[in-house]
This record gives sequence, structure tokens and C-alpha cells, in this order.
Amino acid sequence: MTTKIGIIGDGHVGCTVAHELIVSGLVDDLVMIDLNEGKVNADAVDFEDAMANLPNHVNITVNDYSALKDAEIVISTLGKISLESKGDRFQELEYNKKQLQPITESIKKSGFNGILLVISNPVDAITNLYQQLTGLPKERVIGTGTLLDTARMKKVVAHKFDVDPRSVSGFALGEHGNSQFTAWSTVKVLEKPISELAKSASWELTDLEDEIVRGGQTVFMGKHYTNYGVSAAVVRIARAILTDSRTELPVSSYQEKYGTYMSYPAIVGRCGIVARVELNLTPDEESLLQKSAETIKEKSQA
Amino acid sequence: MTTKIGIIGDGHVGCTVAHELIVSGLVDDLVMIDLNEGKVNADAVDFEDAMANLPNHVNITVNDYSALKDAEIVISTLGKISLESKGDRFQELEYNKKQLQPITESIKKSGFNGILLVISNPVDAITNLYQQLTGLPKERVIGTGTLLDTARMKKVVAHKFDVDPRSVSGFALGEHGNSQFTAWSTVKVLEKPISELAKSASWELTDLEDEIVRGGQTVFMGKHYTNYGVSAAVVRIARAILTDSRTELPVSSYQEKYGTYMSYPAIVGRCGIVARVELNLTPDEESLLQKSAETIKEKSQA
Amino acid sequence: MTTKIGIIGDGHVGCTVAHELIVSGLVDDLVMIDLNEGKVNADAVDFEDAMANLPNHVNITVNDYSALKDAEIVISTLGKISLESKGDRFQELEYNKKQLQPITESIKKSGFNGILLVISNPVDAITNLYQQLTGLPKERVIGTGTLLDTARMKKVVAHKFDVDPRSVSGFALGEHGNSQFTAWSTVKVLEKPISELAKSASWELTDLEDEIVRGGQTVFMGKHYTNYGVSAAVVRIARAILTDSRTELPVSSYQEKYGTYMSYPAIVGRCGIVARVELNLTPDEESLLQKSAETIKEKSQA
Amino acid sequence: MTTKIGIIGDGHVGCTVAHELIVSGLVDDLVMIDLNEGKVNADAVDFEDAMANLPNHVNITVNDYSALKDAEIVISTLGKISLESKGDRFQELEYNKKQLQPITESIKKSGFNGILLVISNPVDAITNLYQQLTGLPKERVIGTGTLLDTARMKKVVAHKFDVDPRSVSGFALGEHGNSQFTAWSTVKVLEKPISELAKSASWELTDLEDEIVRGGQTVFMGKHYTNYGVSAAVVRIARAILTDSRTELPVSSYQEKYGTYMSYPAIVGRCGIVARVELNLTPDEESLLQKSAETIKEKSQA
Repeated sequence: MTTKIGIIGDGHVGCTVAHELIVSGLVDDLVMIDLNEGKVNADAVDFEDAMANLPNHVNITVNDYSALKDAEIVISTLGKISLESKGDRFQELEYNKKQLQPITESIKKSGFNGILLVISNPVDAITNLYQQLTGLPKERVIGTGTLLDTARMKKVVAHKFDVDPRSVSGFALGEHGNSQFTAWSTVKVLEKPISELAKSASWELTDLEDEIVRGGQTVFMGKHYTNYGVSAAVVRIARAILTDSRTELPVSSYQEKYGTYMSYPAIVGRCGIVARVELNLTPDEESLLQKSAETIKEKSQA
Repeated sequence: MTTKIGIIGDGHVGCTVAHELIVSGLVDDLVMIDLNEGKVNADAVDFEDAMANLPNHVNITVNDYSALKDAEIVISTLGKISLESKGDRFQELEYNKKQLQPITESIKKSGFNGILLVISNPVDAITNLYQQLTGLPKERVIGTGTLLDTARMKKVVAHKFDVDPRSVSGFALGEHGNSQFTAWSTVKVLEKPISELAKSASWELTDLEDEIVRGGQTVFMGKHYTNYGVSAAVVRIARAILTDSRTELPVSSYQEKYGTYMSYPAIVGRCGIVARVELNLTPDEESLLQKSAETIKEKSQA
Repeated sequence: MTTKIGIIGDGHVGCTVAHELIVSGLVDDLVMIDLNEGKVNADAVDFEDAMANLPNHVNITVNDYSALKDAEIVISTLGKISLESKGDRFQELEYNKKQLQPITESIKKSGFNGILLVISNPVDAITNLYQQLTGLPKERVIGTGTLLDTARMKKVVAHKFDVDPRSVSGFALGEHGNSQFTAWSTVKVLEKPISELAKSASWELTDLEDEIVRGGQTVFMGKHYTNYGVSAAVVRIARAILTDSRTELPVSSYQEKYGTYMSYPAIVGRCGIVARVELNLTPDEESLLQKSAETIKEKSQA
Repeated sequence: MTTKIGIIGDGHVGCTVAHELIVSGLVDDLVMIDLNEGKVNADAVDFEDAMANLPNHVNITVNDYSALKDAEIVISTLGKISLESKGDRFQELEYNKKQLQPITESIKKSGFNGILLVISNPVDAITNLYQQLTGLPKERVIGTGTLLDTARMKKVVAHKFDVDPRSVSGFALGEHGNSQFTAWSTVKVLEKPISELAKSASWELTDLEDEIVRGGQTVFMGKHYTNYGVSAAVVRIARAILTDSRTELPVSSYQEKYGTYMSYPAIVGRCGIVARVELNLTPDEESLLQKSAETIKEKSQA
């Protein structure tokens, strides 16, 4: 009845997602879970110290898995960013994998039957593990995947053409990691395919790719983690689920054809992935996607 | 014409305030300023990576004081929390003071003529310095002061009586620091003075004071800084200014009678402190307030 | 799980409440019910024509009582304002009463077990009837009552003292009708009892009462109905229920002592009226309240 | 500095736009203007009666053109829907034209220099007149045009494919009136051109057109006016202006090529129409657009 959301992991990302959910008035009951009891209690108290000055009320529960029973959404943000170097998110895999066993046991035990949203990296591999370990239907376990990379691409294109990033269409696809790529054939701005706009001017699409990479580096070099971009991404997915808006979003979902979780646009609603979208990719893009799928599968087994 | 807000300092508090302003849709143009260029650029890019997934658009400018010229509000969040121990915010004074000289020079040079909101600690002393150094009228320089302490008190009282903290009235007064106190004579819940409710039951107001202190300790021990409570406080003040709602809020404002900035309820509107409120304190509370004022003045000169 | 709200009656008030719920993002699934199929379908289509341009998605169902089964809140706005003259809301009683029989049957049949909020006038009598006919527990059937009259009083006091109406405390009590009254002993502004402020100046509390009445007349003469004030009131109650904020609000709830529904402050949360508040009224106010209760009971039986 | 918006006309549309602006927290100062003093004062008082229960404060001024001086946006909603029959919005032209003379005089006299948004019908002709009479630059006078028709088309396509209307792209173009048309070559859903999807299934695009028309009829037959769809449209334009988001929107703007105001996608930002978009229409669509332009010009001179 009420809107209840659980967040597992209260690091840089977890508490930022909590903050965004609270400020946006999207959540009524919030369950925060972290092994670091001191940190998660500190954040909970800090949020409660905000209540009298916030327009929306939120009830916060800490470290109680049983409270997830009737949650609509559980968001996994656990991870250890310090293990990453050179942007290889798979360096977190082993560490995060170990934590998944007890966490998924606790989630199952709670009777949770909502939608599981995964931010934890390497997100495609971890989303896959969450699905297997919880036994939730594949369409109810979703990774944020390249929704963030897509937003980064839109930002760069928007900047190039001086328009709203929301007025740019198109997708970054594949692994949320080094093998991801922008499917430029899907990108349109000012009602024109971007490849056409590039051809008729003095620049290359790779210039934009370089700028996207530079943006990521600026964030990583400047603070050694990212939180705001991915927080907005997961909250947008949550909004689509809660309102059953059936919005088209590039998220990490199970791709039967490739045998792995991987990002590709899908329709997101109250039951999770409620429909599939079929892109008309170029052969080059198809092969990049294939390669990205293989990367995920290979590295997941390592 | 547009709603422009500047934030000086991009530490734990600065970026959280930025996030809250962005998510709440309260700001159109945001100016972020910090000496740590890497960090402030990282946060700006991270916020821009969020735009495509956020309902509200915000334009972000980094480290450009001249952009403050037509800002309605500038929020100072600079500080070095690591200098604090035992909760003595004055341990930050010397360090923060040094930074104020160039910052206020730059603010003045920009032609800024809006409202200056100060979170930097020790907040009453720093607000005082900001007013002196910028030469802005006293009513246009405001510290968040005990608006946060008041919210903490309301949280504890609300929890005791199982009601909304927004349905508790009353104030914490004085220094936003160790000499602050809850003026219990002003506190009402369930339409009764709290002292009356305490008398007719088996507990003391000091029990609540202990719980308020424990809450602060939980936050500080758990993460060594606070950000969400104070962010909600400053955003609430900003909201009152932008909408000219003329809301009664306990903020740090210049108290002629005591010759210092100190928290006491005032009416906050588009021109800053637009009217004064006169409390009917008990003699004990009056003396605590006097003592708190003296503490601020003494320690400011140290 | 999702936030579902039903609105019965799609007249001036019903569609305004729907609009406010949709724009504020407070509702995910909205059920609109009205005997005038043309009007309610027109409004539903009009709202759907808004969706592509609104940040929040809402799913709308029309004239399906069975959809109320899992609604958290049902709001009754039915009525026929044209039957009212001289502000006597009881002139609507007979007409509205007749409609209640089939409506409450349909609500019961749906299996609805949430909170019933009543705006329909005469609100205290109609709320009473809704409770009896649905058999829902008394604490789950609430009338908007004098929450609107209280807002009107706050507006007038706020205007007199040039402060935010949200910074005025106090209540209008009793019937939401001609026998209601402002309990001036409860009204405070600028941290002073208003009677004290009036005494020390050259005006009477009755001047404010006259202004409150004039405001009502301006609305009624100008458009022959009210919708925005009461819509904000019911949405505020809905917000308290959905977030379980346990907010103190003067609403029409069952008053054991007086044997009728009537407005008096109460604590509102997810289970409806979750606690009672005890005011310390003056003997005159107590007698006005008694008289107001008698008026409601008498006129209800007519 | 503050966000000030004026609304001229307080009929079905004017007050709904005001309500949406107030509830969404988008406006700080609202100026409401109408010849019917009783109605506009009634609505203003009714909105003020809502304030104590609303999270955002708004200051309302009534019938004071001079207050428009520093407004960022003025929205014209004047009109007389009762003059329309058979959906011919030009039947309002003569009546609305007469009112424009004194209104534009007053706007000019106020010194207003913001963006003028026109809803008044026939919107393309009236927008044209507003521009000529105020002498404001063409890019600062914008009609809501087919942004509403586009939302209606998206709703129908979204319903057909069971997806979010926000996940449908494409435009209705031309006159906001009987000569408007959906440029199906621009419409995409599920990442496919809709014409392709139609071809591979058992339906025609004209079926969708019929459904769009039926929706309009449901609204007009059911309540003899529309307000919610157009209100969301104008608020979306206002949001793009205030935040300078530079969003691509199909609005009525001056089309040099056709010598008239008419709807066509454009980039909307703080300075109004800040860039043009060039569609790649089919010859049939080009000719429909040409015909629509001629219709507007012809009927405007009648």
C-alpha cells in the first residue's frame, strides 16, 4: 500500500540514492542496510534530523531485512570502489560476490517479492548473480547498466548542439564497463541522425566518445567515485516501476539471445521488464554488442 | 529573473546542498566554488551526468565568482571538519577565517547583492565575519544556526510522543555549538507545554536533552561529519527567501541586544531577516542565552 | 504497494483534487467515479492528454468501483453546491444522503479497507453517514472539516501580521458550517497569544472574524463554489496518511464526548486518526463547541 | 530574481494553469488578470485559502498590469469557448481580437520584457497578433500550438503499444485547429517508425487519427472545454524557459518560410525560441503543412 524501498549498502552511492528518494518525495518508508552499523545509523539519524525541515515525511528503518517483506523495490548499492583501478569494474567482482550469499539469503527469507534494482559493480555480472541467488523471475531483477552511460552520451551530444540532453535520443549499449559503446546509429538530435550531422561538419563521432571518456575521468580523478549520475539513473527506473509508466530505458536485463544480463533498451513498468525493444543496429554495432556480451560472460566466470 | 544560487565550498555539506537544490527543482542556475578544482569539477560533471534522468534542468557553473553577480542566494559551506574534536566548532575558526578574506573580496567584486547564508562553523562567528567583510546589511547575512538543533529537538520530542516532528513547536537557541540550549518553555506538543507533560509523567526534560546529544554523537561517531540535516535546514531557509514566505525560523541573525550573531527566531523573507520575534523566556533561559552570547563573543576574539 | 486513490464525484472539487494529486506526484493509480459519465470521461481523457507533458505518470480508471479494493484512500467530493444558499451547507443534506446508499454499497462490495476522506457537505453529517453505512472503523473515516476554515483563519492572521500563514498556529473548531468558530485561545503568531497582541493594539479579534467571513463571501459571490482551498486541505490529509507522518490536523473525526463527527485537532497517520489531542479551551469556547455539536446533531436528523 | 509569472484570463484554462503552477512550486509571484473581477478575486482568495496547507508559498497579485514589469513569463488564456462550434477555433477570433488592443497596450505600458506564451484561440492567429501589437521580438512570443495535439497523438500511440507516452517521439504540426495533422513520418515507438509497425500489422494510421479525434470529442462533449491537457503543455514550456533547458518542443512560432505563426518543433530556452529544427517531411506532409499555413493566413484576415 505504502511506497517502501530498501537500499542495501550505505556507501557513497547508497546514501546519495536515499537522499534523492527522500528529497523527491518518492518514498514513504525507507529501509537502509549496511554492515557498517555506525555509518548507516549515522546517516539514518542525519536524515531524521532533516525531517522537520523537509516538506515530505519518510519513515526510516535500519538493518532489518525482515522489513523488506512488503517493499516494492530493493536497490543494491554495495561495493568497494577502492578495489577498482583503470576503471575495471570487474576488480570488485570477487569481493562483492562474497557478500551476495548472505544478503540474498536474507532477502529471500524476508519474503520480498518486488523489483530488485542493482547498481553494484560489475553490474551485469552482479545482477545476474542476484537473479540466480534470489530465484526472482528474470524480469524482476534489473541492473542500472548503461542508463548512466546513455545519460553521459546525451550530455556530450547536448553540449555539442547546445540543446537539452532530454532532447537527444539514442543509447549506450552492452556491458556497463570497458566494452560498452554508444550505438551511434540510434542517436538523433535536432531530428537528424547524428552521423549525418557529423558528416556534414568537420568532426568525428570519436571526438564525442573522447569527450565522454574525459568526463568519466574528471569524475574519477576528482573524487574517486561517482554517485549523482547513477543515483538519478536508479531513481528514474524506480519512478517508472512505481508509477507503472512503462518507460523505454536502456537497462541491464537478461538477454536470452546472448545468455547474459546486459544493457539494451526495454520497457520498464510495475512488474519490472514488461516488454522488449528491438533495435535495428548496424553490423558493426551488432558485433560490438556480441563482443561485450562475451566479455561479461568471460570475466564473470573468472 | 532566473533562480540562481551559489555554493562556496564543495565538501560533504556543499555537494549535498547542491544535490538537494537540484533534486528539489528549487534552482535554475547553480554556481559551485571550491579551491579543490578536481573535486568541484568532478561533482559538476557528475550532476550533469544526472540531468538526462532528472525531471528538472539545472545549469551549472564552476569556480566563477563573477557569476554570483545576479545570484539571489550565496551559501557558504566551507570548512574543515577534521579540525574539530569534542564537538568544539571553534577549532575551525582560525582556518576558516583565513579563507574568508579572499572569498569575501571575490564576492564583493562580483557585485553580489542577494542573501548570504552561512553554514560554515563556528557559524555565529563566521556569519559575523561574513557580514563585516562583505559590508552587506546585517539582515541580508544569515547563519543556519540552531535551525538544525531545533530540528533535532523536534525529532526527539516527536519520537517520545509518536507524532510528526513538524507538529512540535519550540526552539533551540543561542550559539550553534556547545552553549546552545533548548528553550523548553517554548516547546509544545499535542497542544500542551512539554514541561507540563513531563511533570505529569515519570520523566525529565533532561532525558530528552540526553537523547538529542546521543543523536549528535551517533552521527559524528558514525561518519565524522553531518550533511543531510543541515542541508535540509539551509534549503528551507532558501525556500523562504525565494518565495518570500516570511516564515518564522530560528536562525543566526544579528542580535542588537547581545552585540553578536546568534540564533533566535526571526521572520525570513526575500530581503532576509524581515522582522523580529520576541520570546517570553524564563529567567533561567534568558541567562543561558546571555551566557551563550558571551561564549560566542569571547571565543570569536580568541 | 502502489499508491492508489479513488475520488467519488467529479464536480468542481473532485476534478481539482484529481489535478492536484496528479501534479504533485502523490498518486500512481487514480480511480475517478461520477454518475455524469460524460464529464468524468472528459476529465480522464483531458488528464491523459496531459501525461506526455507531465513529469509524473498516473494511471486513470473511470467508474469502476471494484478498482477501489486496494486503494489506500477514497475521497468523497459528491455534492450539489447549487442547492446551497446563505452558506447553509445542510441544504445539500437530503440530496447527498440519497446518493450515499448506492455509493457506500459499492464501496463495501469492492472490499475497500483504506481511509475514507469526506469533503461532501454538510461534511460532519455526511462523514457520520459514510461511517455508519460502510461500517468502517470510526478512525478510518475522516472529514476535511475545519482544516479549510483553519487555513482561512491563518491567512487572515498572517496578513494582519505580515507573516507566513504556516507560521500561525491555532484552530477553527466544530461544524464546518455556520456554527464553527475560531478558538482564539489557541491562536498564536510571532510567539504570542493573539488575544494579547490584540489587546495591546487598537483592534478586536472580531475584526479578523469579519475578514474571514468576507473572504468566504468573495469566493462564493465570485464563483459560487470553492475548490482550491479545500483541495489543498484534503491533499494535505492524504499526504499525512500516505507517509504516516502522524501530523496534528483539525479534521472532522468522531468525538465520543459529543456523540458526533466534528472538527477538533487529531493526529493523522496511515491508520487514520491515530491519536487524540486535548485542547485547553476557555469556558466560552467549550460552550461554542457544545453548541456546534448540537447543531450538527439536530440538523442531521431533520 | 524571483520567478514571477502573469496569467491573463481566468476562465477554465487560466485558473487551471494558475493551480498547476502553484502546486508544482514553479512560481513564486503570480499575477492574475481578468475583466471579471468577481471571478479572479474569488480564485485568488481560494488559492490563498490553500496556502497554509501547501508546501510551497506563492504571492498573488490581482488585476495589476504594472506588476508584469519584471515577470519572466506572461501567459494569455483569454477566450470565449462558448463561441466555438464544430471545433472551429476561428469563431473566437473576432471576439478575442477586440480584447487584445487594450491588453497589449497595458502589457507594453508595464515595461514587460519576458516571454509571452499564448493559449488563446485561434492560437496561431492570436499569437501573431500579440507579437505585432506588443512589438516584442518574434522569438519571445510563442503559442502552445500543437504541443497539446502532439501529446494527444502520443497518448493514442502509447495506448496502442502499451508504453509510456513519453517514450513515443514525433509531432503534430501546423495550425492548432482543423488543418493540423500528425506528421507520421516523424513518429517512432519501440525504436521503429510507426508506419513500418502499421504495415506489418492489420491496422492503418488513420485508425489512430480517428482515435485522436474521438478523444477530443469525448472531452468537448463531456465538458465543453479543455483545460488539463493544455495546462500541462504551457507549464512544460514555462519550465523550459525558466530553467533554460533548451528543450525541443512543437510550439507555435513564427515560420519565416510560410509567413505565419504555426507549430513546428523548435528549441525553447530562456530567451524563447533559441534555435530552429529542420524536419525531413514527406512531400505529402510538406503540402499539408503548406495548406495549414494558408488556412491560418486566410482565416486570420477574414
